[in-house]
Amino acid sequence: MRGVAILGCTGSIGRSALAVLNRHRDEFRVVALAAHKSAPELASLCAQHQPSLAALVDEDCVNGTRFDGVRLATGRQALLEAATHPDADIVINAVVGAAGLDATLAALDAGKRLALANKESLVAGGPLVMEALRRGGGELIPIDSEHSAILQCLAGIERDTVQRLVLTASGGPFRDWSAAALGSATPEQALQHPTWEMGAKITIDSATLANKALEVIEAHFLFDMPYDRIEAVVHPQSIIHSMVETTDGSVLAQLGFPTMELPILYALTWPERLADTGTRRFDPVAAGTLTFERIDDHRFPMFSLGCAAGREGGTAPAVYNAANEVAVAGFLAGHIPFGGIAETVERVLAQHEPVRVDSVETIHAADQAARTAAQEALKASWMS
Amino acid sequence: MRGVAILGCTGSIGRSALAVLNRHRDEFRVVALAAHKSAPELASLCAQHQPSLAALVDEDCVNGTRFDGVRLATGRQALLEAATHPDADIVINAVVGAAGLDATLAALDAGKRLALANKESLVAGGPLVMEALRRGGGELIPIDSEHSAILQCLAGIERDTVQRLVLTASGGPFRDWSAAALGSATPEQALQHPTWEMGAKITIDSATLANKALEVIEAHFLFDMPYDRIEAVVHPQSIIHSMVETTDGSVLAQLGFPTMELPILYALTWPERLADTGTRRFDPVAAGTLTFERIDDHRFPMFSLGCAAGREGGTAPAVYNAANEVAVAGFLAGHIPFGGIAETVERVLAQHEPVRVDSVETIHAADQAARTAAQEALKASWMS
Repeated sequence: MRGVAILGCTGSIGRSALAVLNRHRDEFRVVALAAHKSAPELASLCAQHQPSLAALVDEDCVNGTRFDGVRLATGRQALLEAATHPDADIVINAVVGAAGLDATLAALDAGKRLALANKESLVAGGPLVMEALRRGGGELIPIDSEHSAILQCLAGIERDTVQRLVLTASGGPFRDWSAAALGSATPEQALQHPTWEMGAKITIDSATLANKALEVIEAHFLFDMPYDRIEAVVHPQSIIHSMVETTDGSVLAQLGFPTMELPILYALTWPERLADTGTRRFDPVAAGTLTFERIDDHRFPMFSLGCAAGREGGTAPAVYNAANEVAVAGFLAGHIPFGGIAETVERVLAQHEPVRVDSVETIHAADQAARTAAQEALKASWMS
Repeated sequence: MRGVAILGCTGSIGRSALAVLNRHRDEFRVVALAAHKSAPELASLCAQHQPSLAALVDEDCVNGTRFDGVRLATGRQALLEAATHPDADIVINAVVGAAGLDATLAALDAGKRLALANKESLVAGGPLVMEALRRGGGELIPIDSEHSAILQCLAGIERDTVQRLVLTASGGPFRDWSAAALGSATPEQALQHPTWEMGAKITIDSATLANKALEVIEAHFLFDMPYDRIEAVVHPQSIIHSMVETTDGSVLAQLGFPTMELPILYALTWPERLADTGTRRFDPVAAGTLTFERIDDHRFPMFSLGCAAGREGGTAPAVYNAANEVAVAGFLAGHIPFGGIAETVERVLAQHEPVRVDSVETIHAADQAARTAAQEALKASWMS
């Protein structure tokens, strides 16, 4: 019986994780649940799953919510307590955004298996995360469907015979849109993802293709792969979740109907698999037609901007990520048009002088500076 | 430096194997080359590759051909000599039809790695082949693109977590044809394979989908998988070469542009891989649209006939295979229409009382009886 802590339990990944764990109660036990603000939902999930610890990051949101039979901790420290809970063998980090970095580092330093949905941890703090992984002797398993696909393919491939990783991208809701139409795209339109049901932030990142750039950076660190051997291709049906090319010219792929439950289950059981009938069996005929397109850098500049930040290294990816978070919030609030996201991020990156990532403080400083710069860029374009 | 013997060196697989070996002369050395009738071609390949032994099965075909600097052996015994050559670590069996069985058994009994393109060996003599594999302590690696794909996927999957094998089928040149049009299909039309360039026999087997039934039986033995966990699906583009479903609902696939050189190379290097740039790199965008269809049992009865023979077991698959070989030859000679292939095979199978495969003699007897019955069925329909 392995203990599992879920950080971000009320979000889309958190709820899928609980659905998976519910089907395998003889293998896993929920020991800690953490949420940001949703106290009533957290309390209700605690009533169902009976963890030892409930953690609510924003203490102002407790608001008299009752947590019967479970200890409640609040504040940033509570998230770290959940991430390092002594009964947790596995920590699922499904926190949204760069806020997940501290919990990632804490879980890895505590030697846990970290099942990572919070890709921003790796994007902002890649070198530190990999160092914490080595230091703590734990495991880092991705929950992203693309990286889970790559991990599954790599299970049968010797490390030195990997030639290339090919991430697939749905292309998002604006795949077919002209550059002109993209200019006036609304948040409502951007939130209509064609194949995946996800949270708002990642759905907008899918629409700009920033998400794919974040995933390229994530893959770079996770699989220790140079950027020139990581590619992305648009695959609107989201059936082939990613591919690995070997040095002899073969290609392995992992595929299936889109569901996050499978990558979550695999992150829990890796390198083994556990029989599970909770997801829809794959049927290639029902999957229909599969197509592939190149990413259009002109219409989706966030992809190449992000890849360039990754190649630049140091604090550049953290700045790309922070500026993007602010710009996406500005777009969702109606302050900037869709095209303003890339403009904001590009402006912030242009002002930034990357430095080596040698501490969490360096990342936090770069992150904060990028947020301030992005807010100013936002305000300037909002006023104009 | 590993020694390689090629049985059937003048055919399509044999020539592809020599192309692969030519690119890796520092790893492999050709030690024996065997052909059926093509003496001048065999002599020319011997001049290029300098094996220790040249084997020509049909001694009447030597016809004064000179084999300089290489020992020539002739007759059925020569094929077995090549299959057990002391300098051969790997034997590629690319003989066409049930005639390949003896060489398969000899190579496995000699403890060789057998790279098997001759699927009829396994279809006709599955139990004996697997027994020879255990007895000799060698290895049996498929060269079929579908089975190579499955083997590559299985490299990263624990045996007891395999749920299902899904073989892909191009559907052949008649995939879109109506049942009525199929009735009058000519050999010339049947020999136009849409995605693979292969020998005549296997190309006709692709047109009837008999080839896919042979592959289901092959997969049953190779991967020790019950028939109800092996499926086939039509995939006209031949890009996804086959898939493996795991018990947790995941699916791995191997893909690439159609080429036999990759399965051949993998059979030589398994479980490792050797860097090779001789095949076209896969590009999903250039691969175009991928589609899948169910097999239409009504228009392609040879598929379900073959699967039923496999499930029946014993000598039934050998009889299916032998009757098919005779019927295909009859079709290619213009003696029966395309639909006559399935009619002939069905008639022969209906007359056959399967017995357990306990010796090569049992198989040869069933094979011979099936050929005679098929010839008679052919003659009857030719006379009518």
